[in-house]
Amino acid sequence: MPVFTEFASASRELRVLPSFAPPLPRCSPIPKTSDVEKYEVVIAGAGPAGLMLNLLLARYGLSDESLLCVDAKSTTLKSGQADGIQPRTLETLKSLGLADEILTEGCQMWQVAFWNPSNDKKKIIERTSIIPDVSVPARYPHEVTIHQGRIERILETDLHRYSKRGVQRNTKLNDVKIDEEGDPEFPVLCEIETEGHKRTVRTKYLVGADGAHSVVRRSMGLKLEGESLDHIWGVVDLIVDTDFPDIRRRCAIHSPAGSVMVIPRERIATGDYLTRLYVQVPGDVNPDNDDPEVSTGTNTPPTDARSRRSQVTEKTIFDNAAAAFKPYYIRPKKGGAVDWWAAYQIGQRVTDNFSVKDSKGEDRVFIAGDACHTHSPKAGQGMNVSMMDSYNLAWKLAYSIHGLTPSAANGKPDPILQTYHTERHTIAEQLIAFDRDFSSMFSGKIGPSEDGVGGLTHEEFMEVFSRGNGFTSGCGIEYPENMTVNRDSDAVNPISGNDYLSGLLRPGRRLLNVRLVRHADGYRRDLQDGKINAIVEYTTNPNKKLDFASTGRFRILCLTSTDLLNPQGVSAKTLTALGRAIRRFPLSVIEQVVIHPRMEREFMWNDIPSEIKQYSEMAFYSGYELDDVYETYGVNPSEGALAIVRPDGYVGIVASLPDVERVEKFLESLVRTV
Amino acid sequence: MPVFTEFASASRELRVLPSFAPPLPRCSPIPKTSDVEKYEVVIAGAGPAGLMLNLLLARYGLSDESLLCVDAKSTTLKSGQADGIQPRTLETLKSLGLADEILTEGCQMWQVAFWNPSNDKKKIIERTSIIPDVSVPARYPHEVTIHQGRIERILETDLHRYSKRGVQRNTKLNDVKIDEEGDPEFPVLCEIETEGHKRTVRTKYLVGADGAHSVVRRSMGLKLEGESLDHIWGVVDLIVDTDFPDIRRRCAIHSPAGSVMVIPRERIATGDYLTRLYVQVPGDVNPDNDDPEVSTGTNTPPTDARSRRSQVTEKTIFDNAAAAFKPYYIRPKKGGAVDWWAAYQIGQRVTDNFSVKDSKGEDRVFIAGDACHTHSPKAGQGMNVSMMDSYNLAWKLAYSIHGLTPSAANGKPDPILQTYHTERHTIAEQLIAFDRDFSSMFSGKIGPSEDGVGGLTHEEFMEVFSRGNGFTSGCGIEYPENMTVNRDSDAVNPISGNDYLSGLLRPGRRLLNVRLVRHADGYRRDLQDGKINAIVEYTTNPNKKLDFASTGRFRILCLTSTDLLNPQGVSAKTLTALGRAIRRFPLSVIEQVVIHPRMEREFMWNDIPSEIKQYSEMAFYSGYELDDVYETYGVNPSEGALAIVRPDGYVGIVASLPDVERVEKFLESLVRTV
Repeated sequence: MPVFTEFASASRELRVLPSFAPPLPRCSPIPKTSDVEKYEVVIAGAGPAGLMLNLLLARYGLSDESLLCVDAKSTTLKSGQADGIQPRTLETLKSLGLADEILTEGCQMWQVAFWNPSNDKKKIIERTSIIPDVSVPARYPHEVTIHQGRIERILETDLHRYSKRGVQRNTKLNDVKIDEEGDPEFPVLCEIETEGHKRTVRTKYLVGADGAHSVVRRSMGLKLEGESLDHIWGVVDLIVDTDFPDIRRRCAIHSPAGSVMVIPRERIATGDYLTRLYVQVPGDVNPDNDDPEVSTGTNTPPTDARSRRSQVTEKTIFDNAAAAFKPYYIRPKKGGAVDWWAAYQIGQRVTDNFSVKDSKGEDRVFIAGDACHTHSPKAGQGMNVSMMDSYNLAWKLAYSIHGLTPSAANGKPDPILQTYHTERHTIAEQLIAFDRDFSSMFSGKIGPSEDGVGGLTHEEFMEVFSRGNGFTSGCGIEYPENMTVNRDSDAVNPISGNDYLSGLLRPGRRLLNVRLVRHADGYRRDLQDGKINAIVEYTTNPNKKLDFASTGRFRILCLTSTDLLNPQGVSAKTLTALGRAIRRFPLSVIEQVVIHPRMEREFMWNDIPSEIKQYSEMAFYSGYELDDVYETYGVNPSEGALAIVRPDGYVGIVASLPDVERVEKFLESLVRTV
Repeated sequence: MPVFTEFASASRELRVLPSFAPPLPRCSPIPKTSDVEKYEVVIAGAGPAGLMLNLLLARYGLSDESLLCVDAKSTTLKSGQADGIQPRTLETLKSLGLADEILTEGCQMWQVAFWNPSNDKKKIIERTSIIPDVSVPARYPHEVTIHQGRIERILETDLHRYSKRGVQRNTKLNDVKIDEEGDPEFPVLCEIETEGHKRTVRTKYLVGADGAHSVVRRSMGLKLEGESLDHIWGVVDLIVDTDFPDIRRRCAIHSPAGSVMVIPRERIATGDYLTRLYVQVPGDVNPDNDDPEVSTGTNTPPTDARSRRSQVTEKTIFDNAAAAFKPYYIRPKKGGAVDWWAAYQIGQRVTDNFSVKDSKGEDRVFIAGDACHTHSPKAGQGMNVSMMDSYNLAWKLAYSIHGLTPSAANGKPDPILQTYHTERHTIAEQLIAFDRDFSSMFSGKIGPSEDGVGGLTHEEFMEVFSRGNGFTSGCGIEYPENMTVNRDSDAVNPISGNDYLSGLLRPGRRLLNVRLVRHADGYRRDLQDGKINAIVEYTTNPNKKLDFASTGRFRILCLTSTDLLNPQGVSAKTLTALGRAIRRFPLSVIEQVVIHPRMEREFMWNDIPSEIKQYSEMAFYSGYELDDVYETYGVNPSEGALAIVRPDGYVGIVASLPDVERVEKFLESLVRTV
């Protein structure tokens, strides 16, 4: 029986049970309360884009007094359609501590099977190949399919840890205008309505995450540009009964009777597994311009497409699917097996601008998610691009509002806010370009067409599919040069190679995850990980080793050279200089991660520069025992390299190991000094 | 802009947003409500053992009307001491969907460093070696240290998803007796007290998880047997300032000035990392018998140990630690850095019986956790053995209460309940035997003692440490033969080899995790995983592929032979016979997982027995692409094998592939037929 003489400090429980991500420090004053309802940020819409933004801003430190998110719906999504989570989104959710339920309970989609017309007439179709669903390096080499409502529930549950109010539901945004005269600090005037009761609120920044029919977009006069496609597709979620062998793989089926895409879905409450089918409805129609907001450049009457869509029924979809699957049978498993179906015809359109400035040039109104871009659902991009829009915007807004940027510190319009449009509009344009190619080819036929004129070859289709993988996985995107992405070609580039998809350090691309071993304790870990639920003690621990968890911090990534054990070497000098640099910025905003290559001998802490233990005790790794980190990142171990990784995990700048000045200048342009 | 013709079924949300583990089916009647407060199970104590049992029973289907857990404390633990989670416990928590926060936010302990007296007098001590903390095959090859209160919070949060009431707090158990005359169906009479208000409740089964000073144990007259040790140790949790190089590794330091054990702990809310030190307080004292309940076999007066313990202070502990760390310095980082400290002296004791029967021979009262066994904390076993006690008991209780066992179906005393004592008492005895060796050696000196008489060699110490690893990791334990563990040596044994620690299939040992590739979709996964949050639809999907998630199901593990593609082969005949067998038991209770070896050719579903798709569509794997499953499990691919895995993941029986009769008989002895 334990017999103890025991003592516990009063603060013990608070200390050992941390549960929250650390907020960013705040250098700007908190606005005084007033009679008018005022916020620093108002978010319209609580779909994946709005919830993600709300959660991130709340984690970064915006309280319920500063932040309001409204949504017209009374609860998270019930009957929406998005279902695909891409590898890069998984990485992001993991770095937020939100991936586990999705990985465990969703359907992990590892492979794609291609089925094409067979030369053997009796077989009708045959499997041409099975390839990995994700062909680029990624921490999670697969997609996950899972209901959008579940993603929203996961985000909202976590939000409630940081926000007492959470989303203000049953509340819609009716109108927005910029009114600087009334209150220049809170120039955005919103009319919102809760169950018939209207009120006016003012905000510094408004974000319209209010979907394809965005009120914010319309109120601000932003235009959706693009075209419609001439194909009508049916989509159905159901429990199937089939002898088709690949029903649990993602499949692209090009049969003589039409095209079908199979998307295996998660297991549902009945114990059954869902399947989603995209089924081409044969026959072309003229491009659709039945939405008055859309500039399509054509003048065909809208009735054609609309009436054809309305003729599509559950039976039409099934009859077409059944024909394309032949000789295999496919049918709903039993009565009630069909969960949801729809007929759609979607063009690729992008809004011309993702933000609107006030008269001083400060970006005041932003749009994100479906409000910015519409495209076909087949590539499974919608929910991903929407959440990543918010992931890109959140840290920029938070840094500006908290007075952490140089401009915000000086009360000037903040150019960092412009980079949201610069970066995400580029991605949206790539998205619709890919989607246009992919959708067109998917609707085409494989093999010679009946009139003898050549159709699409399997090889052509595969080429689009594989080339698109960097984009569709989210892992290959590269932001264009801007103040947060510096690819200055005059400076020495320590990276060899140019196959950036493989993981080479490259400004504008995400930092690829690597596996490494920690010096302090031998912990074998993923670099992208880090503890989320700990509050940094600003006064004494400026650089407490969060690695690459999404806690809103900038990280210096120092890949030392092999001269680390030489006190007069480049590595040692660089680490000393970096220590000086870190102390120039607000406490806890700049963190440092150090990786070393294989050395000629074993060493202990007292053999290496003291700055490593001081700033990176728990973020100091060997980079060769598990993955070859130097090889992956394209760094010569005898030279080393420096990089700054932005709060969202994208590389901002790469510099040679001695060039601390370059990374310091880059940081100075983005973060105020103290 | 998407334009949809859309349909969604009314049941869609319920179907696609499952959030709960599936309960076990219930074949027994639910007791009628009555004026007397009655439960099927009452649990006293909501520490790790009590909470684990409460959660498991709630998941298996016991409602708040059937199940009551009381605890005297007003909240989860604030100042307790357990902090170590072993690999087997991590596997178990993962199979319950509860491991992720622990793995991410806890301190993963991967290595142990041994420090011993140096021959170089100036160095005083030196690092003799660093070895992996876990040296046996395990899914998680490390321990995790994390505050016990956090584990309790994780268990309780999950409990609230299944139970509206959760733990009834501020409520203590005062007394227990068995009173069959009053109500033979609910023969256990408990007096419980909530804030001064006493009441009497009746229950079918009572579980005392009420700690080292268990009221249940005392009321039932169970005896703790064992001895005290003659060493006093101090333990302290603090933030250290030190130049000792291995402070973030688990360390065993044997210095000329005494012994210290270092346990690195998790990062806490301040951003600092905790360290736990176990420090030997020099000088021996006589064995302690200051607890009147303990039979120590000695008659020394209690005052000696007690008074010496009371002389231990924070300063004593620190002075001794500082001496042992020399030449390195170690001190609390700053004022308030010490979270908790204690001085203790603990013997190894086990209660003679873990359950008490009524007059008919039915086990009615059980004890679990610290109520059963006390031992030193240094091996980090306490919280683990306690939770695993409950993990062992929970499914047996649930099967009996739900009428799923043959005896319960016939209203007879249920022998499955006796196996709790058989299995867990064995483990408790192994625990204290190991702890006795380990603690004694840890308190001894390494190297020749000053009087020239040989002390302990480093090799001897390492030997105990490594031999103990199978036990301390939890991965090497083997339950003795009983009705749930059949090692009948007369039957053909399809397993070659006897190094059971390596993962060979062995009745009484846990099924080692392996990585495999699923036939249906190419999903690369861990066998121990499975979806937890799905409710099996009993009427149509009797065997819906939960793999080895802890959902209370028995699993048939069929490792087919290489003749799988031969319709007349042994594999095909076995699978057909297994299909027949599965249908004889209540729906959803028996699941089937099928693994195949490398085949001479590719195949599709129509090349293999239809029972595989029927019963194991999403639990059919190739066993050679990632891990060599047949090699790991000791199965000859040309012969195959069968095993039954119990609901807690331990192998119950192993049989040759054709011997379906043997596994069927084993199942019949544990599960009623329909």
